[in-house]
Amino acid sequence: MISVLIVGKGNVANHLLKAFRWLKDISVLQIHSRNLINIPSADITIIAVSDDAIGEVSSHITNPFVVHTSGSVSMEALQNKTRKGVFYMLQTFSKEKPVNFQEVPFCLEATNNDDLNTLERLAKLLSEKTYFINSEQRKALHVAAVFANNFTNHCYQIAAKICKTHQLPFEVLHPLIQETALKIKVLSPKEAQTGPGIRNDQQTIQNHLHLLDSHQQEIYTILTKSIQDGY
Amino acid sequence: MISVLIVGKGNVANHLLKAFRWLKDISVLQIHSRNLINIPSADITIIAVSDDAIGEVSSHITNPFVVHTSGSVSMEALQNKTRKGVFYMLQTFSKEKPVNFQEVPFCLEATNNDDLNTLERLAKLLSEKTYFINSEQRKALHVAAVFANNFTNHCYQIAAKICKTHQLPFEVLHPLIQETALKIKVLSPKEAQTGPGIRNDQQTIQNHLHLLDSHQQEIYTILTKSIQDGY
Repeated sequence: MISVLIVGKGNVANHLLKAFRWLKDISVLQIHSRNLINIPSADITIIAVSDDAIGEVSSHITNPFVVHTSGSVSMEALQNKTRKGVFYMLQTFSKEKPVNFQEVPFCLEATNNDDLNTLERLAKLLSEKTYFINSEQRKALHVAAVFANNFTNHCYQIAAKICKTHQLPFEVLHPLIQETALKIKVLSPKEAQTGPGIRNDQQTIQNHLHLLDSHQQEIYTILTKSIQDGY
Repeated sequence: MISVLIVGKGNVANHLLKAFRWLKDISVLQIHSRNLINIPSADITIIAVSDDAIGEVSSHITNPFVVHTSGSVSMEALQNKTRKGVFYMLQTFSKEKPVNFQEVPFCLEATNNDDLNTLERLAKLLSEKTYFINSEQRKALHVAAVFANNFTNHCYQIAAKICKTHQLPFEVLHPLIQETALKIKVLSPKEAQTGPGIRNDQQTIQNHLHLLDSHQQEIYTILTKSIQDGY
């Protein structure tokens, strides 16, 4: 039996609580990060609060092993006097949507192998995808995730705006978006690249630019150039 | 029974041929676009060749109704003397990967309603997703598809490169990429947007920029600004 204390009441904290509650090898408690007196003891204390609050919240915790769940904060930012680690789930969590934890990669870090193994045992109860990733690597992974998630979603948004301007339903693009995402499971993104940029089809590129507003043109031009430079 | 002639031997032509062969209401033949003598007659002649070749190939065809499959070429670019139309499938086709046509949106255009209905009947044999879209709209849709597919895939490629630079397996990002694509089925891209850009988290943005090369920094900066301007 591993006892787990979750500190925080946000999306990550709540989804994690729900997932742990189903597991018979885990006893789990949750507290609010604004209520840090009489903190329950636990084998693993998971701080799932905003990046800015990790240092302050952890400074109040005397439990033996404290981890945070942030992709962009180093392990050393934890201010507890006891052992430290990181338990970072690389996924986008929505309040409304249930999380399939089996598909969530757990990126783990700790100061010694025993703690790392403990985190791995805990993560493996939820997911098959566990990785040992140090603080420097995790920061790079967080930037990569901005490209793979935030910027990708912004490309969807621009596509949706172009559709709206021309009275087209955005749903026409849904199957293409799903297929584009599925393709990188079987091909590298480099192999999967198609379109007028990679073909250097100047006629189509010019036709496209005529249809865009100046802001969209700027993004179209820089991304097309980047596609061409990368090959 | 509708008789269909497919002109062309590329991915689109080959996938379409395979799909039509299963249908008992369709008789289908395929010819190479370099072999335009003794062209078989057909109710619908589908020219699935490169954009540049559509005009030339169509000028050799005397069949009553000729359509092309291009997203970026207008219907009027067809040079046959008979009736014209467009039968554009908005999906990315790979040589290796089978196509689930039920999930493919068919964007249809013709000069009269009878022809449009014929194209719709044909498309509905393969897919539930059929749309009547004129040449101007189709061109806009093609640009939107560049953002939703080509530029999105390029964001994946930059993410993969960042992973490689930091000895991280790109597969760690696969579940995030799938989830990001699935989210827009239930939320608009605007509602789905997350990350340091939309939060205007300057500390994280600065940390990210330090980890990128100058080329990646340029793209990071312009897309972050675009996310912020859009809200």
